[in-house]
Amino acid sequence: MSWQLGPEDLDDLARGATLLGTGGGGDPHIGKLLVKAAMAVSGPITILDPQELADDAFVVPTAQMGAPTVVVERIPAGNEPEQALAALEKHLGRTADATMPIECGGINSMIPLLVAARTGLPVVDADGMGRAFPELHMETFSVYGVPGSPMAIADERGHSVLIDTGTDNRQMEWLARGITIRLGGVAHIAEYPMTGRQVKDTAVPNTITLALEVGRAIRRAREAHTDPIAELAATLSSTLYSHLRVLFEGKVVDVERRTTDGFAKGQARIQSAPDEPELVIRFQNENLVATLGDTVLAVVPDLICVLDAETAEPITTERLRYGQRVSVIGISTPAMMRTQEALDTFGPACFGLEHAFVPVESAVVELVETR
Amino acid sequence: MSWQLGPEDLDDLARGATLLGTGGGGDPHIGKLLVKAAMAVSGPITILDPQELADDAFVVPTAQMGAPTVVVERIPAGNEPEQALAALEKHLGRTADATMPIECGGINSMIPLLVAARTGLPVVDADGMGRAFPELHMETFSVYGVPGSPMAIADERGHSVLIDTGTDNRQMEWLARGITIRLGGVAHIAEYPMTGRQVKDTAVPNTITLALEVGRAIRRAREAHTDPIAELAATLSSTLYSHLRVLFEGKVVDVERRTTDGFAKGQARIQSAPDEPELVIRFQNENLVATLGDTVLAVVPDLICVLDAETAEPITTERLRYGQRVSVIGISTPAMMRTQEALDTFGPACFGLEHAFVPVESAVVELVETR
Repeated sequence: MSWQLGPEDLDDLARGATLLGTGGGGDPHIGKLLVKAAMAVSGPITILDPQELADDAFVVPTAQMGAPTVVVERIPAGNEPEQALAALEKHLGRTADATMPIECGGINSMIPLLVAARTGLPVVDADGMGRAFPELHMETFSVYGVPGSPMAIADERGHSVLIDTGTDNRQMEWLARGITIRLGGVAHIAEYPMTGRQVKDTAVPNTITLALEVGRAIRRAREAHTDPIAELAATLSSTLYSHLRVLFEGKVVDVERRTTDGFAKGQARIQSAPDEPELVIRFQNENLVATLGDTVLAVVPDLICVLDAETAEPITTERLRYGQRVSVIGISTPAMMRTQEALDTFGPACFGLEHAFVPVESAVVELVETR
Repeated sequence: MSWQLGPEDLDDLARGATLLGTGGGGDPHIGKLLVKAAMAVSGPITILDPQELADDAFVVPTAQMGAPTVVVERIPAGNEPEQALAALEKHLGRTADATMPIECGGINSMIPLLVAARTGLPVVDADGMGRAFPELHMETFSVYGVPGSPMAIADERGHSVLIDTGTDNRQMEWLARGITIRLGGVAHIAEYPMTGRQVKDTAVPNTITLALEVGRAIRRAREAHTDPIAELAATLSSTLYSHLRVLFEGKVVDVERRTTDGFAKGQARIQSAPDEPELVIRFQNENLVATLGDTVLAVVPDLICVLDAETAEPITTERLRYGQRVSVIGISTPAMMRTQEALDTFGPACFGLEHAFVPVESAVVELVETR
């Protein structure tokens, strides 16, 4: 069933998307404000269940790409993603029937809504990452055979770049990243143009709904003064993200972060008590792996989320600071993101990590019991 | 009058183009071999005088871009520039009536011939630099109002990138350079799509003929055992490049060269005798300025050419080596390349040089007399 997303949903959606962004995806705050402003003119946005799509519908995902550290400092004009879409539509000689998120985390939960509010297009309730990932080939679309090309990049000056690397989505990412760096670290894109059939076959379904429910669960717990993480676990248990585990609780004692090669890379250390082993989280835009000594507690593609210990507000990697009291949780990703093809695209080795993938629900049982 | 360029012309053309490349433009040797191979199939190539072009003819220049240091090591497959042309034609929905060089120096004297031999298109006897320059906005087309956009970039894998920065040719260069770097340092392009009228208004005319005559002059002198530089000066005196001055003779005693930001940058020092002042030539792909102590002997956009002292064979910046015995000559550029608009685009300040432009014919008179 299609449904209407209104301005009253945006705070919950942004909170949920920040959590699903697993540290990255870019802070959605500015995106939310842009969508609110656009919605004040357009009214609510139509969200389509992917199962409703005609097989021959033409769907073009829209997104922002760039380092989250730059995203928070460089405010979009607001028309860039629709310009990217328009450039791609013109190039292909075909008009999109709907847009869709490429990831359900961070600002990219908002960009397709911004396009929708400004163009009248509906948004498909699905995405290509089921979380956030730093690179454009790390999408389930790519894993399951959809070419990202041709893709369009647009900036606030009306300039555009069209990239066609055939079926080589890694090369598309490589070239698009080069352009994004030269545009100052952030760009807006339209990519993976696909049919309704391809959406149904390759997208992670119903993740706008998921982000909204995650955001609402945290808000409900705050309002009822109950445990937000318990509320979150209860909400997730009936979804494709059914396992939630608390990995660690403590204080951020160190953050190393640098913006390099167009990404925010680094690590954070979190301490529960002096002289106790520290949790180390390594990130590239998103959190990649959480380790305690030699033990891997969670690793990509599973979600590693750092939440404020009091409010359960998710904290992105570029907002991590010394002294923050946090809860670190791990969430299992859907089965379609754990297949061998999927792990070959966005598993630990794709980030240069030596750790094998271990599902978060099996990795941390022992630890949780001994804490 | 149109004329036919045959395989017997290629050696002279390559030699002349290397000289007009003023140290850069990329060594044309490989390009020459590719054209020879293509001509063996196609036969001679039609060269069009720009004055013959219909005002509404559609001309698309084709070229290679990249650092000369990479150009000599990375052999093209041969089909890349025609793929760039095809990508641009498809994007614009219009077929080119002719191609044209963007510069008359180095390998880019050969690339449009390669396209012509493989596609059957004629080549316009004109170009957009009147020499070689390192960047895409440094073209007389740009100086006199032709947008470089949209432009196409293609590689040997059939991948393509289309860049549209409206009338901002500097930004086009910036983005195209980013792609070229990510493609490994060399790419092939089609840019500045324009009308016959625009060619007549903005191109430096008859520079294929010029390169051919320069190459022939040097060969004639070698065959006749006369002074090649005197032969060259006599040939140039009746062209738009009417002044030739010998700036220095000596031995290369030092070359600093690094491939950085997609360019070959550095400087060479040339010594006439121990304890005598050294000539210093600074370059970015092309030779930019020749100084003797505080005296500027020649500076962009005038040509600074380093020739083998015996054979007058031009030596490109990436071929400069310790111990080479060389003659350094300065050649005046056409008036249309010395206007204020032209100097604002490719004058000394555009390369970060503090020297004012001084025409080579006025700068070196004193020096030549005192040597």
